[in-house]
Parts: sequence; structure tokens; C-alpha cells
Amino acid sequence: METPVFMPVGTQGTVKGMLPEALKEIGAQIVLANTYHLFLRPGHELVRKLGGLHRFMHWDRPILTDSGGFQVFSLGDLRRIDEDGVRFQSHLDGASHVLTPESSMAVQEALGSDIVMAFDECIPYPASREYVAASTDRSTRWARRCKEALRPQTGAALFGIVQGGMFADLRARSAEDLLRIGFDGYAVGGLSVGEDASLMYEMMDFTLPLLPADRPRYVMGVGTPENLIEGVSRGVDMFDCVMPTRNARNGVLFTTFGKISIKQARYGDDPQPIDPDCGCYVCRNYSRAYLRHLYMSREILASVLNTHHNLHYYLNLMGEIRTALEQGTFAACKKEFFRKRESAVGA
Amino acid sequence: METPVFMPVGTQGTVKGMLPEALKEIGAQIVLANTYHLFLRPGHELVRKLGGLHRFMHWDRPILTDSGGFQVFSLGDLRRIDEDGVRFQSHLDGASHVLTPESSMAVQEALGSDIVMAFDECIPYPASREYVAASTDRSTRWARRCKEALRPQTGAALFGIVQGGMFADLRARSAEDLLRIGFDGYAVGGLSVGEDASLMYEMMDFTLPLLPADRPRYVMGVGTPENLIEGVSRGVDMFDCVMPTRNARNGVLFTTFGKISIKQARYGDDPQPIDPDCGCYVCRNYSRAYLRHLYMSREILASVLNTHHNLHYYLNLMGEIRTALEQGTFAACKKEFFRKRESAVGA
Repeated sequence: METPVFMPVGTQGTVKGMLPEALKEIGAQIVLANTYHLFLRPGHELVRKLGGLHRFMHWDRPILTDSGGFQVFSLGDLRRIDEDGVRFQSHLDGASHVLTPESSMAVQEALGSDIVMAFDECIPYPASREYVAASTDRSTRWARRCKEALRPQTGAALFGIVQGGMFADLRARSAEDLLRIGFDGYAVGGLSVGEDASLMYEMMDFTLPLLPADRPRYVMGVGTPENLIEGVSRGVDMFDCVMPTRNARNGVLFTTFGKISIKQARYGDDPQPIDPDCGCYVCRNYSRAYLRHLYMSREILASVLNTHHNLHYYLNLMGEIRTALEQGTFAACKKEFFRKRESAVGA
Repeated sequence: METPVFMPVGTQGTVKGMLPEALKEIGAQIVLANTYHLFLRPGHELVRKLGGLHRFMHWDRPILTDSGGFQVFSLGDLRRIDEDGVRFQSHLDGASHVLTPESSMAVQEALGSDIVMAFDECIPYPASREYVAASTDRSTRWARRCKEALRPQTGAALFGIVQGGMFADLRARSAEDLLRIGFDGYAVGGLSVGEDASLMYEMMDFTLPLLPADRPRYVMGVGTPENLIEGVSRGVDMFDCVMPTRNARNGVLFTTFGKISIKQARYGDDPQPIDPDCGCYVCRNYSRAYLRHLYMSREILASVLNTHHNLHYYLNLMGEIRTALEQGTFAACKKEFFRKRESAVGA
């Protein structure tokens, strides 16, 4: 896997609207799947029985699975936390379930994940120092239990997740504790949860240097194209975000000159591709006018083509960043990235 | 174009869920687009301005357009017929429009259709002899106006449509009248509108021999795989139907041993492909269990993969029929088709 890398999100064992072949065509090296969703439906034991998630979803490149923690904690009143883990009710049918560090490892193993994430709490923002400290320390204890629970024979990598909210000293304590346990890679969790971008960058600036440079550093759930290039500046190796796929389904498309909303009437008779600077399948073959027509007509192909373009945009951007890093021209690449956006008149 | 041929339906300028490349991969030779829908949205003049429907939807093989009549007449209370044409209200925004033989030709011309259908009334079933006779004669007068209106320089073929309801003598009169006007091909309309299959076959048996064998004979809106093979037996060259695409979106899949509903719990852990005898992309790479999971999870890929399989089934069946016709083995092919269905235990 070449880094820095962006991981398309395939929540339910499919990157919404994308064939695996199309993902490969646009250079996806790895996808992220959600443990919580697959645990509930179709169930991890079923996926194991059918040969694992790779075979199930017809994807032969790496898969990273999250721990299920993020979704479970998002359930609000439907979950109860204690030291052992989280009891929660399914958003699908209200059935009661428990996820613990041990069961999260077992589920991710059954799915056949290549990169397993430790079970933690993604702390909401804002949160009191007291809450953040207690939650972060519990996540650290859970991380230790994850490392003990994951069987080495699976061959999967296990990543620890630095928490600590927006408190630098708690971030530092989390990182030190995790490093003492020792993981194959380190994620920074609890960012992009509603804080200002400047605060997010501040936390990255502070946290990333605490993590070993010879292990992958992954900032979870981030972010915009701007966040990606700023993240790479700060040493991030891995990203994931629903933004390109979810925005696509809402008709919001990424271009070198910024975002456009394809539903706008101005695109109704526009023969241009989404982005004249883009070489993707969609931009080579379809006009904005056609894409607007598909979107307004609620056609399946609207989601398919918009997702293809947006993921291509993200993956292509990461490819350009990797090339610039290899050639020592990253600073110029970053400058050009922002210059194009600022000089935008083309849309 | 090789016949007999099945035409996938691309109502709004897209065969729902299918990329044009995927359509070609499974052997689609021609698609059908709906004049009524494209007239209302995005508008035929817009499509013309953008280079025609082929370019708009990125499809470089033939396109047949219907006349708009079928949809307009389906609007019930929202339309009023007179000798000139039909005044109707858009199902999208209630706006008032008129379609006449002349405007239907103009719209189909603007779309850049390769095969233009005459503007007619698709008579509902059941209908009184009096209604059928009057409607059919009006459709004949409209067909004459269509022939006068369509400009020869478009290079498009114009098909007349035999009506006459379920009355053999009115079918005969319609066919004779149309033959006298002279068209590039002849369709049989007003079938598969709720009548028993035996009555539909009776009407085909009666009507098809009245049409010239050296011109394409097209039975509109038909039908099931069984209807296709029975239709070919009776001399039909062209078919279209939403059945493979619409059923796909509802999780109903066609196989050599009959239809299956992928939502059934029995497929939840089934590692088999939809149809072990099928060589399509979906059957080569995905299990029934995965397809059920996608369907239950309301994933976009459910529609994409199910549509791919169902259209492959239809187009492959037509390919087998063409080969059998060439080799003089059609009777055996038809027998085998029904034998597989009757001996089905596999699902």
C-alpha cells in the first residue's frame, strides 16, 4: 500500500454505488468497512461462513474495519457504557447487543479484516475535561484488552487510537500509554467531530509528532480535500471519510476549483464535464447537463456517476500528493492546490 | 442489428442502474427511450442542443423512441383526446401540454432517434368494440400524419403500430390500412395490457402473418422470458419490456429454472450464484447471500447488480434464440427452455 492513502468507506460491505472493479480503476488501494453495521446485518458469523468479507463483497485488496465503537457511541440513549464494554440497541430492530474490546476483535477477525481498529470511545465535542480524561483512560484499558484478545494467527495489523479530546496533555497521555502497549499503527480519533478546522489542525500538530514515524498514522473520519492536504503536511498517512460518497449522492461534486452542486439550474444546459481538468470516466463521457438531469430525475446512475467522480477526485488528489512527496515538490503541489480554488471562476 | 432482439428500456435517457459500457458488455444492441418523459424533462430541445440523445446519454448504438402516446394515454383524468392529438397535464408539475402526431415526430427527431414510432393510442383492456374501432381508425389517421410529418433527411426509420384491441377483424383492418400507408417496420401494440397470455398469443397468431416478413415486426411492451420465446415462434423480431429492469429493483431475478425473489430468508446464507448456469459478471463474482444482504440493506449496488443479471439473462436468451434459428434448432431450444423450468428444483 502506498501512503498517504485515502480509504473509501464501504459501510455495509459495499462502497455505495461502486463496483469493486470501478474502485480499482480509480486507484482505490484499501476500503474501510463498518463493524457495527456488518455485526448487525448480515452478521459476522455469516460473513465468516461465506469466506470472509473480501470474498463476500468481491474485493481482493486490503480492508480496514473500524471497531464498531464510533457507531455504538453515536446511538445516544440507546447505549449504556461500563468498564466491560457497551450495551446497545440495534438501530434496525431494537434488539439488545453488547460490544466489548474482546467481542470487537472477534467480529473483526470473523470479517477477515486486514487492519483491525482497537475498540474505543470517540469522544463527542465539546466535552468536559473530566469526561475526556475518564473516557480516554478507559479507551486505553480497552486498547490493552484488544491487543490481548486479537489472535496473532489472523495476520491482521492492530491499530491503537489516540483520544484525549481537545486537551493536549490528555492527547499526550493517551499516545504515551498506547505506545507503551505497542501497536502496528496509530490512529488519531475524536477529530472532525464539530470543532473548528483550526482546532483540529492544532490537535494534529500536537499529536502526530508523538507517534512513531515508522508506523502508519491514521486520522479517522477526515475529511475535506483541504483537510487531506493539510493533514499530509502534518504527517498523516491514512484518511477515511464518507464525504466524497455521501456528497455525491446529494449531488455535491468535488473539482480542482472547489465544490459544485449539480442540482443548480445553471448546469441545466451546460455541455461541460464536471471538471474540465479531470480525466475520470465521468468527465470524459458525460456533461453537467446530463448529470443534472439524472439527479433531478432521481436516477440510480446519478449516484453511480457522481460517486465515481468524487472518489476519483479524492484518490487522484492523494496520488498527486504521493508523487509530489516522492519528487520533493509537495510545497508547490499544496500551493497550486489552493491557488486553483482561490482563482476559481470556471464553475 | 441482429434479430430477434430485446431492447432494454431507458425511460429517462438511462437504463436504470446500467452504465452504457455494461449494456454493451452484455450485448445490448439497441435501447428504448420514452418520448413522454424526455419531452417533459429535460426537454427535447435541450437534448437536441446538447447533440442529441446518443451523445447526452453516452450511447453510440441505435435508439428506438416510443411516441409518447402510451404514457399520455395512461394519465387518465389528466388527458383529453381529440382528432388533433392529446392535451395532457405533466405528472411532474401539472403543466399543460399537447402531443400530436406532428409534435411527436418533432420531439423524436430532436432526440435523434434511430427508430421513430408513430403516435397512437394504446387501447386499454377490456374495451368495447365501438371504442376500439374508433380509436384504431384515429390511430391510423394519426399514423398517416406521422409519415407526412417525419422529415426523410433525419434518416430515421418510422414504424407503424397495429392496434385493434382483441378484435381480429379490427386488427386486420389496422394492419391493412398501415400497409397501404407504408412503414419501415410494423409494431403490434395494445398487447400485454392485462389480457390472458392465451388471448395475447391468439392476437399474435392472427396479426403477425398480416405483416410483411421483410420488415421488422415488433411486439411492444412484451414481456416475460416465456412470452419472448413464444413470440419468436410466431415471427416477432423485436421486443421491449421493463420487466427485467423493474423486477431487478424489486429483487426478482430471472434464471434458467424460473424466477427467484432474492429477499427470501432461504438465500441468507446461500453461497451459490443467482443461477449456476449463468456466466454473467454478477453470477461469476457474487453469492445469493451477498445479493440478499445488499437488497435488505437497500444498497444502490443491489439494483445495479440485479439489473445487470436480469438484462444479461434476457439478452443472453435472445442470443441463444438467434443461434438456434441460424442453426435450425429453434424447436429444440424452445423445448429445452421449458424443460429446465419444469424440472426446477435448484432454487
